[in-house]
Amino acid sequence: MDDLRTLRGRLAEISDLSRAAGVLGWEQRVSMPPLGTESRAESLATLGRVIHDRFTDPEIGRLLHRLSALEESLDYDSDDASLIRVTRRDYEKACRVPTELRVEMTRAAASGHHAWVEARKNDDFASFLPYLRRNVELKRRYIECFEPADLPYTALLDDYEPGMTTTEVRDVFATLRPALTELVRNAPEVDASFLHGAFDPEAQRRFVERLLPPLGFVDGAWRLDPTAHPFCTSFSNRDVRLTTRYRHDDLESVWSTLHEAGHGLYAHGIADSLMRTPLGGAPSLGVNESQSRTWENLVGRSRPFWTHWYGPLQETFPEQLGNVDLDAFVRAINRAEPGLIRVDADETTYSLHIILRFELEQDLIDGTVPLDDLPEIWNARMKEFLGVDVPSNSDGVLQDVHWSGGGIGYFPTYALGNVISLQIWAKVREALPDLDDQLAAGDLLQLSDWLRDNLYSLGRKFTPKETLERLTGSDAIDPQPYLAYLSDKMASLAPA
Amino acid sequence: MDDLRTLRGRLAEISDLSRAAGVLGWEQRVSMPPLGTESRAESLATLGRVIHDRFTDPEIGRLLHRLSALEESLDYDSDDASLIRVTRRDYEKACRVPTELRVEMTRAAASGHHAWVEARKNDDFASFLPYLRRNVELKRRYIECFEPADLPYTALLDDYEPGMTTTEVRDVFATLRPALTELVRNAPEVDASFLHGAFDPEAQRRFVERLLPPLGFVDGAWRLDPTAHPFCTSFSNRDVRLTTRYRHDDLESVWSTLHEAGHGLYAHGIADSLMRTPLGGAPSLGVNESQSRTWENLVGRSRPFWTHWYGPLQETFPEQLGNVDLDAFVRAINRAEPGLIRVDADETTYSLHIILRFELEQDLIDGTVPLDDLPEIWNARMKEFLGVDVPSNSDGVLQDVHWSGGGIGYFPTYALGNVISLQIWAKVREALPDLDDQLAAGDLLQLSDWLRDNLYSLGRKFTPKETLERLTGSDAIDPQPYLAYLSDKMASLAPA
Repeated sequence: MDDLRTLRGRLAEISDLSRAAGVLGWEQRVSMPPLGTESRAESLATLGRVIHDRFTDPEIGRLLHRLSALEESLDYDSDDASLIRVTRRDYEKACRVPTELRVEMTRAAASGHHAWVEARKNDDFASFLPYLRRNVELKRRYIECFEPADLPYTALLDDYEPGMTTTEVRDVFATLRPALTELVRNAPEVDASFLHGAFDPEAQRRFVERLLPPLGFVDGAWRLDPTAHPFCTSFSNRDVRLTTRYRHDDLESVWSTLHEAGHGLYAHGIADSLMRTPLGGAPSLGVNESQSRTWENLVGRSRPFWTHWYGPLQETFPEQLGNVDLDAFVRAINRAEPGLIRVDADETTYSLHIILRFELEQDLIDGTVPLDDLPEIWNARMKEFLGVDVPSNSDGVLQDVHWSGGGIGYFPTYALGNVISLQIWAKVREALPDLDDQLAAGDLLQLSDWLRDNLYSLGRKFTPKETLERLTGSDAIDPQPYLAYLSDKMASLAPA
Repeated sequence: MDDLRTLRGRLAEISDLSRAAGVLGWEQRVSMPPLGTESRAESLATLGRVIHDRFTDPEIGRLLHRLSALEESLDYDSDDASLIRVTRRDYEKACRVPTELRVEMTRAAASGHHAWVEARKNDDFASFLPYLRRNVELKRRYIECFEPADLPYTALLDDYEPGMTTTEVRDVFATLRPALTELVRNAPEVDASFLHGAFDPEAQRRFVERLLPPLGFVDGAWRLDPTAHPFCTSFSNRDVRLTTRYRHDDLESVWSTLHEAGHGLYAHGIADSLMRTPLGGAPSLGVNESQSRTWENLVGRSRPFWTHWYGPLQETFPEQLGNVDLDAFVRAINRAEPGLIRVDADETTYSLHIILRFELEQDLIDGTVPLDDLPEIWNARMKEFLGVDVPSNSDGVLQDVHWSGGGIGYFPTYALGNVISLQIWAKVREALPDLDDQLAAGDLLQLSDWLRDNLYSLGRKFTPKETLERLTGSDAIDPQPYLAYLSDKMASLAPA
């Protein structure tokens, strides 16, 4: 038990330092004056090095080794057994990557990000190419640090979706792609013109800040700030930071806020006992994303939710929405409409953007696509997948930040999140048969509490698949509920 | 030279981590949700421990030892020689204090702060007493870590005003106290009623934000936020954070902002070559405070400054100031009026508040005053020093935060800052004979540049006394210019 105490002490300190890095990252994106960039990068690099050195200290390995017997004597589900088990997995992964490769990757990510910002601004893919090439090379070296899997790409995927193989994702996407293409092709046209116009950002802010407490956020444990690219982070389950973006000409801040609120509720709901341990997070990006999508879409685009909230929204924007009835509003926010930009995509087309990137990423890593040809291939596939013509690389292959920072393997988790959200939602429906009535009455707390008790509170104690199995009875990623949901939605939009 | 590179590398990392702690502290006071307190305290404690462990690592001592020969071969004024010299002084001091005493002091400070907040709220000195007693005991143990000086209190003073002895401060204050008491007793009555009323905080914010760029702050290198207790911090010379307080019923935010701007200009002006080293700060709190006082008072209460800025202020508050002429305004902001609260005190009475605390602190440390009697003694001395009756401990002995966090030895630096500001100001006047004309024309940059080039840029390369000697030709703390300044001021206020 002394060893466990020692391990917990070391992990608590590492967690404290990671939280500190989290504050620095949040502050950089929310309030830092621009000339602070260089000094902030230095602080973050040093903190990252200290955290990595402390976590890969061989003494952690010795402690984990000595704790094997204790682990086996404990209940698999207990906090202690889970801590030892998950820490061992993280430790073994962290030790496989040489420090100098990590340093190189961090450096390439930083300069790649800078190059991407410029390239996107100037619609100049060629200037970004050397940086992308460097990131891809480093990712190949990174893959070599691990035991061979079904496919090389799996090592990258594992950083974001632990335990998932490329083959499994391919299978899921093989079902999704034709079905989604079909749905999008036949999507009814819906009038959404009233969602574009002048929407005072300050009024948007007031409206979305009203939404958050009813979702289950405790007073004094969160804040919401405006930022260029919305994100959510947390420094404990009692310090959750949401960000959103208020545009002058639409209401996207509502769903952007609900999306980040889903991530935020996850962080907010993690059990106190898991704080200051590596278990104080979500099992994977996909599982985490399933909850942002739940609150953004399954709740936030549902008729019952807006039965309660549409009145307040109309009162906030009487000129724009006063003459639009609830039915027309709900139809508009659920329409499917192919577009160029992933982050602006609707629920139905969204996963097609992801599948395109997933396929391209594998090609990049395997070398089956020459990097120089990327824009052409991108544009051809956008036409094939979504039927749209790409007018510029800035709105095409350069639109996303991920590759600039070496984030290859990340994209598929977005679509997996969509799929998983519906698998969990089926269980929610069973557990809360009156959910629609609750939502229509403005009661979001029963849903929020159920998800907290059955999912969020578990933190990272279990793998994504273990977590899914506990919740749904099966660890398989099943795209059918998601497709059925979208199919019903499209049917509901068809003119009567 | 390898050793120097190694030392610089280690110090740069320590500086990176200290900056990270600085960001966490700033964020806590400016934007953190209240329930984040516990997790923030954990992160700050761990960061503090990591920083201390890294700085007191014996390898730093060995490097410093091996660098002695290099140091002697270098110009005393060079960055490298200064780095070795100052780091050695810091290192030897840091190593004298056992880790467990530091941990105890940090813990006692944290719980003391909490107890003080409650005690002050409830006007309950007795509830704070055990925490104060603990802080005083720990300070006595701290003093024992160092070689005996002229008086025990000197070890505490040295943390804030390196190289200064208690005896020296006593001498300065022995001159100040009777002279200030006399000035205050004979201070002319001045009408300042128009400085109290309804002043829209948003309008105050707009006005003070206009003031900052002309002072010499580079765009993108600073920000100003509202906070309960104004302070200034910085994470590099290109990331300076000012805070201020906007009250609804007065204009104190103007001088509060100018005060913090003085600290901010200091941080902003430190040479780039000193970033990421222990030299990237001010030589002492007193020297730093001399500059906050310079901008708040010597500039910010001067007739020339307001010759330019009073128009814009009147335009901002036409109802309140439209009928008040410049002379009446300048008289009002320069008046002397004894009061209860240090932070609200005017220039003339301010140092008397400090001298009272300086004397009491020595009594506390020497044990010549029983802690239980502190409120009575406080009240008696307030009557003696300032002629005011103290109605409650909250407005008396409990008013300041310092003792709750173990900050004994800090107060005298405020009065030293006042004194030093005038010693430096005499040199400014010689160097910029047209200063009054410049200020009256709204040109603050020549002053700002001169102070940057001759003082701020030096950082911590030299001791406070060396710094003062370089600027003024003497390393003595001389209260006469300060007294002459106040005496002239009081004379100027007398009815014509």
